[in-house]
This record gives sequence, structure tokens and C-alpha cells, in this order.
Amino acid sequence: MNKTFYYHKEDFEKMQERYRAKFINSLSGFKSANLVGTKSKDSQTNLAIFSSFFHLGADPALMGCIIRPHTTPRHSLENIRETSTFTLNHINESFYQKAHRTSARYPREISEFQATGLTEEYIKGFFPPYVKEATIKMGLKLIREIPIIENNTVMLVCSVENVILCNDFIKSDGHIDIELAGTVCVSGLDSYHSTNLLQRLPYAKWRNDEQT
Amino acid sequence: MNKTFYYHKEDFEKMQERYRAKFINSLSGFKSANLVGTKSKDSQTNLAIFSSFFHLGADPALMGCIIRPHTTPRHSLENIRETSTFTLNHINESFYQKAHRTSARYPREISEFQATGLTEEYIKGFFPPYVKEATIKMGLKLIREIPIIENNTVMLVCSVENVILCNDFIKSDGHIDIELAGTVCVSGLDSYHSTNLLQRLPYAKWRNDEQT
Repeated sequence: MNKTFYYHKEDFEKMQERYRAKFINSLSGFKSANLVGTKSKDSQTNLAIFSSFFHLGADPALMGCIIRPHTTPRHSLENIRETSTFTLNHINESFYQKAHRTSARYPREISEFQATGLTEEYIKGFFPPYVKEATIKMGLKLIREIPIIENNTVMLVCSVENVILCNDFIKSDGHIDIELAGTVCVSGLDSYHSTNLLQRLPYAKWRNDEQT
Repeated sequence: MNKTFYYHKEDFEKMQERYRAKFINSLSGFKSANLVGTKSKDSQTNLAIFSSFFHLGADPALMGCIIRPHTTPRHSLENIRETSTFTLNHINESFYQKAHRTSARYPREISEFQATGLTEEYIKGFFPPYVKEATIKMGLKLIREIPIIENNTVMLVCSVENVILCNDFIKSDGHIDIELAGTVCVSGLDSYHSTNLLQRLPYAKWRNDEQT
């Protein structure tokens, strides 16, 4: 590796704001790419792109995400607080450009479903809309908000209430082949990537005689 | 999409434990792939794979991660608590198999650096070791632990203290091309993927005359 540079945190502070946002956003690695579908009590739907959802636990099935209440996805947050429910829809290679367009600042009365041409889908009485075009989608429930006082963001702790997907994606051991499903990932603020499986690796053992 | 199945959360509870772990772990989407380097006060080094790091904020530069204190990476957590510092090293396509092997349950006195053949590197007096083979690496400081009472996990809030990388990866706008750097991503518990850039998309606007 030639030309290795060392940046100290004082160097971040000297960066221009947008430059810093892109630089620091890239550092954690690849991120999940999801569309959050919500509906207000007065039936206004909303769709917003999130790259901040992460796995919290399998038993019970929990997910977390980070929201900046004072910036773009505030309509989503208002709807989630009002109804405690939302849908999470994997962004697929076939519609990632439409998904990105949900990040524009539409007025409240415009649904990003209509604006982007993605389709609302209602399944088994769950209140907010799923994205019909998504090949993996879920219904989530807000359990708790945790304030992150260090930067005035909020972490949402959510339970997974239901999952809708094609059984062809599920391997015999429970692993879901999200690459086969066409799920994309994000790096930084605006870079979309498809994936190539390198390998699934077996449970790592220290010694061959170790009990798993 | 043929053969679409609907799973309710009661279905998760009926799944066998390892099946459920793999199934639920796949749901949030692609995950970051990092190696955490730590050193205890008595100079025992440790290296552990994490797929739970996420971006928290750019100003100040913050990252979060989820740790299960009662399972595998407990030596890492002990060292982080003892010294408040650790390194975060992007897992590269060239060494993802070695990185995966750090998840075996080595005894405390065995360093995963030695066990896997990855190389300790010390830079500018930062206490814990970086991974020499990593093309993007950082020094982090623990700021706060947040208990996630819903499943007895802990979220670490961490500040980014320094970043070491090749300047060739940094675009003129600050975005870091982590794909060019060879960074991989993870799905589920054990699936490693390289990426293909689809596109970087411009800032989304509702109308062409909107101010950015």
C-alpha cells in the first residue's frame, strides 16, 4: 500500500462539512439498504430510504436503526411514532434508483410511492404499506426510542413482526440468500453496490476436537 | 415472485435455535465486516471479527456497535473496557478467511493475531494494534455503553480518533471508494461478499429548482 495517509480527528474538524459527511460515512464499511414504508393515522403514506438499519438480536427478533430527527426522514419518524408500526423493504437492484429518489424533500402531502412509481402493497391487515416490488419485506413494531445524546440522534429498537419472501431464497440451514434476492448495499452517502458471494464459511473452531 | 411465504413472529419462535439465528441475522440486509484489535493492560493482544459496526454520525465522527457480553467477543470487550481504545480494520477480500477464524473460541492467552497469521501494527503511539494487512483502519475510543435491556446486549458509542488509508481511495468529494480498497461485506452469520459498484447517485431533488 503506497501513499498511506494518517488522519487525526482534528483533521476531520478542518474538513468542509459535506466532504466530512461523505468521508466519515464511508468508514464503518458497507451498509444495509432499505425502504421504510409508513402511514399516518389520516392515511398519508410515506416511503424513505435508510442505510442505518442493523441486526440487534435473533431471539427475540430485533432490529435497530439510527434516525436524525431534525433532518430528512422526519415524516417517517412522525408516522412511526403515531402508529408504532412500519415496513422494512430490502432495496433491490431493479429499483435502487427509484429508492434513492425517496430522499428528496417532498412536501408532506406527496407520497414518495406516487412520486417514485413504487407500489403500495397491504398484506394481512398490517397497517403501513409494504413495497410490492421488494423481494424481501418485513413488518416491524417500534418498542423503544433511545436518545443518543452525543449527536442528538435517536436509536429505534424494533421487533420483527412478520417477514414476507420467496422460499427459494431460504437455505436448508435458515440462512437467507439475500444476494439471490437482488438485495443491494450502500457505501457512504450515495454509492450503490450489488454483491458477489465469495464463500460461506463453516463455524470456526480453535481445535478440531472442539465441541460446537 | 412465485411461492411467496409469510412468516409471523410466532413462526420464528418455533424455529430451531441455530436455524432462527441464521434466518433473523439475514433480515437487516448486508452488514459491515471489521476486525477489532485490542490489547489488555498486561499486553495481551486480541483480534475479533464484528459485523455489527454502524455509522452514528459525521460531526463529531461517531460509530456504534452491538456486543453480546455473554458470548464470544468477551476478551475484546474486557480489553476495550480496560483501556477505552481499540482499532477497527476493514476486512479485505485478501484475508477474509483468516478474519473469520478469529471467531473460534481461543483461550485468553492465545492472540488471534498469531493464531490466524495476521500482523500486529502499531502506529503513532495508539495503544492497541492495527491489522497491518488492512487497507482501511481506524483508532476508536469508547465513549459510553448503552444497555439494550430487550436482549441483554450492549451498544458501544465510540469516537473515531484517527484513520489510516491510501489516498488513492478518497474521491475529490470526500467519498471513500471502499470497493477499490477491497473491503468485503457480510450477510447472515457466515456469508462473505465482494461488491460491484452499480452507480453513485446525485443528491435527490423534488424539483429541479430546489436549493440543495
